[in-house]
Amino acid sequence: MFLHVQRLINEIVPDEPDPAAANALQEGLGGQFGEMRTMMQYLFQSFNFRGATAKPYRDLLHGIGTEEISHVELIATTIARLTDGSPAYTGAATKPVDEPGKGGKTPLASALSVGNIHHYLVGAQGALPVDAAGNPWSGSYVYNSGNLVLDLLYNLMLESTGRLQKCRIYEMTDNKTARSTLAYLIVRDQAHENAYAKALESLGIDWGRTLPIPKTDAERFPEVKTLLDQGLHLKQYTFSLDNLSEAGKIFRGSAPASVADGNLQTEQMPDGFPMDIAVERPEEFAPGLDADLLELVQRTAELELDDADHAADKVTTK
Amino acid sequence: MFLHVQRLINEIVPDEPDPAAANALQEGLGGQFGEMRTMMQYLFQSFNFRGATAKPYRDLLHGIGTEEISHVELIATTIARLTDGSPAYTGAATKPVDEPGKGGKTPLASALSVGNIHHYLVGAQGALPVDAAGNPWSGSYVYNSGNLVLDLLYNLMLESTGRLQKCRIYEMTDNKTARSTLAYLIVRDQAHENAYAKALESLGIDWGRTLPIPKTDAERFPEVKTLLDQGLHLKQYTFSLDNLSEAGKIFRGSAPASVADGNLQTEQMPDGFPMDIAVERPEEFAPGLDADLLELVQRTAELELDDADHAADKVTTK
Amino acid sequence: MFLHVQRLINEIVPDEPDPAAANALQEGLGGQFGEMRTMMQYLFQSFNFRGATAKPYRDLLHGIGTEEISHVELIATTIARLTDGSPAYTGAATKPVDEPGKGGKTPLASALSVGNIHHYLVGAQGALPVDAAGNPWSGSYVYNSGNLVLDLLYNLMLESTGRLQKCRIYEMTDNKTARSTLAYLIVRDQAHENAYAKALESLGIDWGRTLPIPKTDAERFPEVKTLLDQGLHLKQYTFSLDNLSEAGKIFRGSAPASVADGNLQTEQMPDGFPMDIAVERPEEFAPGLDADLLELVQRTAELELDDADHAADKVTTK
Amino acid sequence: MFLHVQRLINEIVPDEPDPAAANALQEGLGGQFGEMRTMMQYLFQSFNFRGATAKPYRDLLHGIGTEEISHVELIATTIARLTDGSPAYTGAATKPVDEPGKGGKTPLASALSVGNIHHYLVGAQGALPVDAAGNPWSGSYVYNSGNLVLDLLYNLMLESTGRLQKCRIYEMTDNKTARSTLAYLIVRDQAHENAYAKALESLGIDWGRTLPIPKTDAERFPEVKTLLDQGLHLKQYTFSLDNLSEAGKIFRGSAPASVADGNLQTEQMPDGFPMDIAVERPEEFAPGLDADLLELVQRTAELELDDADHAADKVTTK
Amino acid sequence: MFLHVQRLINEIVPDEPDPAAANALQEGLGGQFGEMRTMMQYLFQSFNFRGATAKPYRDLLHGIGTEEISHVELIATTIARLTDGSPAYTGAATKPVDEPGKGGKTPLASALSVGNIHHYLVGAQGALPVDAAGNPWSGSYVYNSGNLVLDLLYNLMLESTGRLQKCRIYEMTDNKTARSTLAYLIVRDQAHENAYAKALESLGIDWGRTLPIPKTDAERFPEVKTLLDQGLHLKQYTFSLDNLSEAGKIFRGSAPASVADGNLQTEQMPDGFPMDIAVERPEEFAPGLDADLLELVQRTAELELDDADHAADKVTTK
Amino acid sequence: MFLHVQRLINEIVPDEPDPAAANALQEGLGGQFGEMRTMMQYLFQSFNFRGATAKPYRDLLHGIGTEEISHVELIATTIARLTDGSPAYTGAATKPVDEPGKGGKTPLASALSVGNIHHYLVGAQGALPVDAAGNPWSGSYVYNSGNLVLDLLYNLMLESTGRLQKCRIYEMTDNKTARSTLAYLIVRDQAHENAYAKALESLGIDWGRTLPIPKTDAERFPEVKTLLDQGLHLKQYTFSLDNLSEAGKIFRGSAPASVADGNLQTEQMPDGFPMDIAVERPEEFAPGLDADLLELVQRTAELELDDADHAADKVTTK
Repeated sequence: MFLHVQRLINEIVPDEPDPAAANALQEGLGGQFGEMRTMMQYLFQSFNFRGATAKPYRDLLHGIGTEEISHVELIATTIARLTDGSPAYTGAATKPVDEPGKGGKTPLASALSVGNIHHYLVGAQGALPVDAAGNPWSGSYVYNSGNLVLDLLYNLMLESTGRLQKCRIYEMTDNKTARSTLAYLIVRDQAHENAYAKALESLGIDWGRTLPIPKTDAERFPEVKTLLDQGLHLKQYTFSLDNLSEAGKIFRGSAPASVADGNLQTEQMPDGFPMDIAVERPEEFAPGLDADLLELVQRTAELELDDADHAADKVTTK
Repeated sequence: MFLHVQRLINEIVPDEPDPAAANALQEGLGGQFGEMRTMMQYLFQSFNFRGATAKPYRDLLHGIGTEEISHVELIATTIARLTDGSPAYTGAATKPVDEPGKGGKTPLASALSVGNIHHYLVGAQGALPVDAAGNPWSGSYVYNSGNLVLDLLYNLMLESTGRLQKCRIYEMTDNKTARSTLAYLIVRDQAHENAYAKALESLGIDWGRTLPIPKTDAERFPEVKTLLDQGLHLKQYTFSLDNLSEAGKIFRGSAPASVADGNLQTEQMPDGFPMDIAVERPEEFAPGLDADLLELVQRTAELELDDADHAADKVTTK
Repeated sequence: MFLHVQRLINEIVPDEPDPAAANALQEGLGGQFGEMRTMMQYLFQSFNFRGATAKPYRDLLHGIGTEEISHVELIATTIARLTDGSPAYTGAATKPVDEPGKGGKTPLASALSVGNIHHYLVGAQGALPVDAAGNPWSGSYVYNSGNLVLDLLYNLMLESTGRLQKCRIYEMTDNKTARSTLAYLIVRDQAHENAYAKALESLGIDWGRTLPIPKTDAERFPEVKTLLDQGLHLKQYTFSLDNLSEAGKIFRGSAPASVADGNLQTEQMPDGFPMDIAVERPEEFAPGLDADLLELVQRTAELELDDADHAADKVTTK
Repeated sequence: MFLHVQRLINEIVPDEPDPAAANALQEGLGGQFGEMRTMMQYLFQSFNFRGATAKPYRDLLHGIGTEEISHVELIATTIARLTDGSPAYTGAATKPVDEPGKGGKTPLASALSVGNIHHYLVGAQGALPVDAAGNPWSGSYVYNSGNLVLDLLYNLMLESTGRLQKCRIYEMTDNKTARSTLAYLIVRDQAHENAYAKALESLGIDWGRTLPIPKTDAERFPEVKTLLDQGLHLKQYTFSLDNLSEAGKIFRGSAPASVADGNLQTEQMPDGFPMDIAVERPEEFAPGLDADLLELVQRTAELELDDADHAADKVTTK
Repeated sequence: MFLHVQRLINEIVPDEPDPAAANALQEGLGGQFGEMRTMMQYLFQSFNFRGATAKPYRDLLHGIGTEEISHVELIATTIARLTDGSPAYTGAATKPVDEPGKGGKTPLASALSVGNIHHYLVGAQGALPVDAAGNPWSGSYVYNSGNLVLDLLYNLMLESTGRLQKCRIYEMTDNKTARSTLAYLIVRDQAHENAYAKALESLGIDWGRTLPIPKTDAERFPEVKTLLDQGLHLKQYTFSLDNLSEAGKIFRGSAPASVADGNLQTEQMPDGFPMDIAVERPEEFAPGLDADLLELVQRTAELELDDADHAADKVTTK
Repeated sequence: MFLHVQRLINEIVPDEPDPAAANALQEGLGGQFGEMRTMMQYLFQSFNFRGATAKPYRDLLHGIGTEEISHVELIATTIARLTDGSPAYTGAATKPVDEPGKGGKTPLASALSVGNIHHYLVGAQGALPVDAAGNPWSGSYVYNSGNLVLDLLYNLMLESTGRLQKCRIYEMTDNKTARSTLAYLIVRDQAHENAYAKALESLGIDWGRTLPIPKTDAERFPEVKTLLDQGLHLKQYTFSLDNLSEAGKIFRGSAPASVADGNLQTEQMPDGFPMDIAVERPEEFAPGLDADLLELVQRTAELELDDADHAADKVTTK
């Protein structure tokens, strides 16, 4: 079973809207080597896992798979921010419905020439489950052969490719919103690369000088360097509420990358950062409620929530 | 952020393996109206949600979306059990590697004529992210217009269609493993149908006699009746660890179905049921470790997990 | 603009339900060389047509394209009949809702082993827009280069391939329902093959002995022979209500097939055959109305339709 | 059976070519919520319809489905006009073949940077069966559960989403050609929204204040307002030549939208507007006939069409 | 540039037709880890290769990519043989056209229940570019990141997965035709696994005991053992006519698999085995020539081929 | 079996990088009518060929299919050159790793607005198996009905469509690198059009004045005219190393195009042009080797290749 907390796994730095950067980030969300894929691949691998004696490996997959859901949340939210308001439509706040096309104006005109038009046409300036070329995510991406060595080898390659692509996107844009999430995911992909490399090391492989992939010098990517200095690439979160995960048996000792840079360690989960709810976008008819409906919504929002008063205790005191 | 516990959201009743039933259940996992789709659709709708005043609706989406991840886990595990050992290959336990094809035998012959051959060829007798006709899950399924009424209306239709399909699958097989999960999901789909119908009721729609969809008489589906008698269709779980969900403001009062059957209520999360790790399948080379590699795995498994000793406290005491 | 009459373009002979044959016929509906494709290809070619001097060619495309919509209707209805009741569930008429799963029975069990499971799971024993291997129809099938010779050449090849595939399906099943529609479409495909061959003949190509494709001796396919004896392969319908079509300028004179068998002629449209509405299928929850809803439907059905009393005059007297 | 007349269902206002707007309109043609989808969905729903007592609902589906074919024709023709001549290639009229690349010039250069390159490369400045992001239309879009309430609910959501997307496209471009078709389809989508809402109203649902979706104030969209003032959103066409449609039993009385604005009424079909044939585009080799072939075409065009002289009487006098 | 010789890379052992086995083998041809994919992936990797100093790696990719074309030829031909005549239609030889459906018989009836119906409906008892579940091969399978370590790592995983899947298919059927090709490809995949492992070894990775993947004991697969005894897994062919390949610099020394079994060696190309042309299948209208057309073909076949008399010298004497 | 030589089939003229032109050329590589499709279609047609008496036709298919592999190589290499260095990143040569993002610069920024972003994000400035709209190549493109006349007719249409599209791309760009390959393929497509037209001519079809398609006047395309003047459209290569091809029996005599321009002739293979290996692109991490790994690669490259000394004799002396 899965639970959530209303916190983002990393902070998203504010900057101007940038639909072209948003489109590039879609590769990291819905691309063949993006977060939706890592999430689904590791979850399927853990659901279908075979071999009770190999439980630490199952728990490693389950733990990283769970973290990836939060990555999907992070990068989707980042894309939503990058597309939000990018048509530079203003004045929406005062009259929430029907303002945009007033007299036949074209507040969404920029959608015709920048990024993926679907961000404005199919979605309401939010993230989509597609890649940077507009192809929808496909279940055929998920690799789960059932053979442990192969699955780990694929995962190592998958994380490294995700990291490679994010480094390339980093080189495409200097938008701070985009880079804050890119840098975070570059470092976490490296942590996961370490995790799978370490799992394979426990099966006898010596990686020599080949890791990390791609070879990077953190000095070149300032936001990445900051996170590396914090050792974020050496931590593995379990996101395990019942503390039954044995992933820590694999993710320990020195990192398998050729550059010795400290010991790996397993932690439960980070504190996270606040989540906000995006503003209304009347030019998108989102949420598209008129005065009458807003009044009805307001009544719901004002209710005292008596029922759930003591609900949270249940889990936490188990 | 998301967390997990090593518990299944419902119990899977043991029965014979049944790859044909497993294939039918794939529709409920990777089909256009299956659990992967509900999970992704609600998560995207909550990530891209607009309008802070409508937070209870966002939290409803987020909460159901989180529950759907556990449904994906449940139905994937059910499919894995239905395919597991279905070729009736025996004797695997004693010699874990290379037994199957001994002397050119055909332990996997049944894969040629029953169910989806990919269950035995691409996967190792486990679940796949595809539907019952073998089509991979597609990101194009996800609907997120950004318009609140439309999104809720689609969700209501989506849950009802999922429930309709599961009722049809129920009529295709009497395998107890399959039916235990089908019955559970039929009732939970009804709970979610109630949730979205109630959300739309709060916006002024009166459903008259049209709900539930499909119209069913629980007496006909014994396993479903048992769960309805427990009121499982009237509960909404939030799966919110930090107790910040306001979904309970919507999901309360009488159910919108035409048959009055009690009041809706919101709860945190169920206790769940134990998760097991599946046995090895040497005929699938899964996990495919020989004596040497098993010895290495064993060493990892025997490690004491010192690092994480106090890790779980972090969240629970926050 | 398009209109319809509640008549089928050919009669469907009754026979036993046969879901395996139904699945084969899906190729003729939603396959790469099926009726949905011919319909869409010719309509797009006529919408995008260039060159006013070539109007007879445009009208030929438009006319055949319109006939193909009726072919889609015919083959879809045929498939619906072949799947209808194939689980041999009886007694549904008396109690329209909830009978099927009574006590946990499995009226839809046959769907697990015969034909396409989606006929019973996603649809309610009706036709689907997919091919015989379950692949959904794709817009990428439509060929419309804009070059007249190429478009005609492709169309000739398309009709011949459709005819080839239907001859092969004819050899797969002797179900009378399936064969009545197959034979009709085999002959109409030949008529369209003639039409495109004739159009290319008007541009100077001499087909020698290559037509028809495939080479068949009608004696081998009795239902086909009956229709050929009626000269159905020598007629071209325009389905043009305003009589503006100039397609007859192309489709005239002797047939281009190597076996001289009479002169081509253009007609407006055939008389057609009655259309029935299929029975309810409670095991599919289709239409899924309970007593309350049926009563509401009944009230609608009993209304006198005053408004439209003289409506039909409008077109016919224009 | 289906027929056609050589009339467009609405007039297309002339304006400059605009390939970017053309690409946006592709969503309305080949997108997941475009006209090809509504057409196919309603036709499949009517072909597979169950329950003779519910004939008015079947006829409603069949009638709207038939209208959608004319919408496909309208929007395809609009896109063809928007792409036609957009490379601003001139002088084509005088020398019909081989002029464009004269001496290696690049008359199609703009295709590299604006809109969908396939409009110039795969098609010959005409419409394509794809969406605004270039994805081909898919049969997997068609929803036909067989459950009447669900099918109607989906259709209501589908029309509303189509309308929502067209409102967004309206806000992207002020090209008059594009807007004339967008405005017309926005209003017809509303009429269909009314039709499905009314059908569900007849089954007991009270829509309260939620309709129309999206909420719009016609004043903001001048072309839309003109059509609303004419009551175009309150009419339902049957396009039924034999006057057997009972759709009028459903589509009558007051509109279900929260703003009371008159009574619904059913009509047969509109008069329509003239259809032209597009000019030649030698830079596309369309139709690509040289002097010799044009001469042959000319001979065909000059034929007197004797055969069909009295053909049209057949239907109209039936 | 590429050349061909009319020889198969391995002998195909005759056995009964077996369409179910043929369908399983489709995974090895058109599946995500089949020969079409390896061929395309290595060719793209070599076309896009960067770094002149790494030429031996480029040549290794090019050489294996070229071998894979011959594997595509081999497995496609094997599938064609397994489907050929599987409907047990006899007597075709005497009357080449129109025999099959004589009097309405159903020579292709078995296509409705065994294997992939497209083998008989879309193709003429021949191989298709699809996988064992009927999904068409997709360009999205091709992985070519441009990063050498990643590309090699993926290739190693790809070959191992291909080998894993072929071992599973081996366990599904004991048809000798199928197994002769499966065994050959299992061993060649191992050779390629060795090649990529060795290439990575040259970059510093020590594979420990993890190779080969999957772990197999050749005694269990008799046909495989025969080939291993011949050392076929230790040879690398360059298929380089101009002898410029430097792949041998990588593929040399001891094999990287944990079981030491000899030294690797590079050779030019094997002798190959004769290729036959399949017989006619009149029930498929293949080739579908009637007496007239056959006579024309015969005239072509009887021509003396004067022109090419000395053509072959050109290459061989260069 | 297939072999290769390290020569390109045509010379690629150097010019500036041009990612927009590169994207257009993708249609000729991975598009529905591009070189990957012709290659695969003809190879499948020859693998599945039926009828020993028709061997010259099989050999024609096999020969053209083999040439198409070299076309895939040529156009892929052309695309790689057009994308290579297009971000105008300089100074990479001196410090091969990590230079690009130095201090957070954006060397890949242009990828956001020109061509297909995947050229820079998924690939490393190299060709992709996709079309100009980003759709991956699909196995569903391959047409192989088994009926000889139909297969030849499709191939004629396929070559003509490929030629049509390349003429259109020629009109989109005057980049010399792009045009040198476009012109070559336009002429070779015409040669193949001649080949299939001639094969159909041998079966009795007289093409009249319809060929070539599209109608072009070579004077308009200077690079094309140069090649036509050399008679390149009148040659057919067999690429048959063992000189067993009988394709020359078909491809002889006068060309079937309406403009008589000489006799057809069959040759073995052209001499070809040198192939280079592309430079490193550190901004793409391609090949992504750091100093340590480069040293290891260097050691491999310096090895004397003793083993293969006499290997090439084997084939050439057979």
